[in-house]
Amino acid sequence: MTGTLTIAGLGPGDEALITPEVSAALAAATDIVGYAPYVARVRPRDGLTLHPSDNRVELQRAGDALQLASEGRHVVVVSSGDPGVFAMASAVFEALEEFPQWRELPIRVLPGVTAMLAAAASAGAPLGHDFCAINLSDNLKPWPVIEKRLRLAAEADFAIAMYNPRSASRPEGFGRALEILREAGCGERFVIFARAVSAPDQRIETVKLHEASPEMADMRTLVIVGNSATRRVGRWVYAPRHAR
Amino acid sequence: MTGTLTIAGLGPGDEALITPEVSAALAAATDIVGYAPYVARVRPRDGLTLHPSDNRVELQRAGDALQLASEGRHVVVVSSGDPGVFAMASAVFEALEEFPQWRELPIRVLPGVTAMLAAAASAGAPLGHDFCAINLSDNLKPWPVIEKRLRLAAEADFAIAMYNPRSASRPEGFGRALEILREAGCGERFVIFARAVSAPDQRIETVKLHEASPEMADMRTLVIVGNSATRRVGRWVYAPRHAR
Repeated sequence: MTGTLTIAGLGPGDEALITPEVSAALAAATDIVGYAPYVARVRPRDGLTLHPSDNRVELQRAGDALQLASEGRHVVVVSSGDPGVFAMASAVFEALEEFPQWRELPIRVLPGVTAMLAAAASAGAPLGHDFCAINLSDNLKPWPVIEKRLRLAAEADFAIAMYNPRSASRPEGFGRALEILREAGCGERFVIFARAVSAPDQRIETVKLHEASPEMADMRTLVIVGNSATRRVGRWVYAPRHAR
Repeated sequence: MTGTLTIAGLGPGDEALITPEVSAALAAATDIVGYAPYVARVRPRDGLTLHPSDNRVELQRAGDALQLASEGRHVVVVSSGDPGVFAMASAVFEALEEFPQWRELPIRVLPGVTAMLAAAASAGAPLGHDFCAINLSDNLKPWPVIEKRLRLAAEADFAIAMYNPRSASRPEGFGRALEILREAGCGERFVIFARAVSAPDQRIETVKLHEASPEMADMRTLVIVGNSATRRVGRWVYAPRHAR
């Protein structure tokens, strides 16, 4: 019996945002592997083994999933949002480089609605023009790289989606990011704080960047900084399609 | 009777990538408004009026949709992919600025799987680290703005998703974009040409940027340029989670 490995995105939280492709993969799985809060989003059933794990053990988790698939199991590795955006897909391919014996396994990556798209939709259309996505976590890269990217993104006049703006271990990073953007002349830009996107306790808050403070974001917040042309109409915030 | 306006993303093509939220909105609609090829993706039924329109009439189309909703209809404006990424959501909010009488209408934006996420999933995980999305169409912005953004994106070492790389009216732009990235020292980066993503005739091709030529993209192609650390493992291309 040949096992399979599927890397799937569960979307930002609401079940109505899980694609039928991902639902079908979950229904056919024998094993679900992932960070515990995401595994908890999969309904238990007979014949399905859940393998929740801790945060920050992505490579170990990827290796475990590949091992299970090599034993003939049908394994789904679950991520929140899209598995290819700051999530498990890269970790699985890193593990695949480390363990060549698993390279022949049938692997599929199933896309999902990543947090910035759901956040943008709730706020209006702040990503309607060119934009970038930056992971503010410095677990995986030196902080100066993040600063440099923020400065260049401001100069390019991209809208900027910030993932993982604030963690318990590094509360000062996001404040510094706001400072850099103010220094880069972005004080009058709109900033959207989208907390718990698509969950029942979703909260969307929009302010000018010069009014933003670090405490407005926590670990469940996705932050979108608009570009210089981003406007408000009624309760909506959007990037016009044209640029000068 | 109060009408409603819903701006929905149909995903890149495969029905299995349409979220249940969007399917429910289509099932409850009285009117579907959009660019003809996208409207053609909605199954006709009794009680549903389809309003296909031409390309490049986004603002007119948005106004028509708002007019229908103001008459009590339940209107869904459909886009391919995600409606907030180079699609109809921004056009609807632009129309809303122009016509204040419609600002009280109930409006919802429903996110979808945008082309770059599906392309990335088919190729591996090239968007697994910081990235940007640039619309190469110069209908809506001056070409020098596009050049500047490409140079800054290369300097930031973002992976770069290019939407609308090549159109009949402006075939030379994409060749120039490749030149700029070569000049910026990106010749050894991987480039993924993802054509007809998620459709039966999908084709994924990966080359080094110095080997890429403009003819490799057409109007149905999404191009992803990897960052400097992007690697191949077997048939997969991925961005490692770490940066130096």
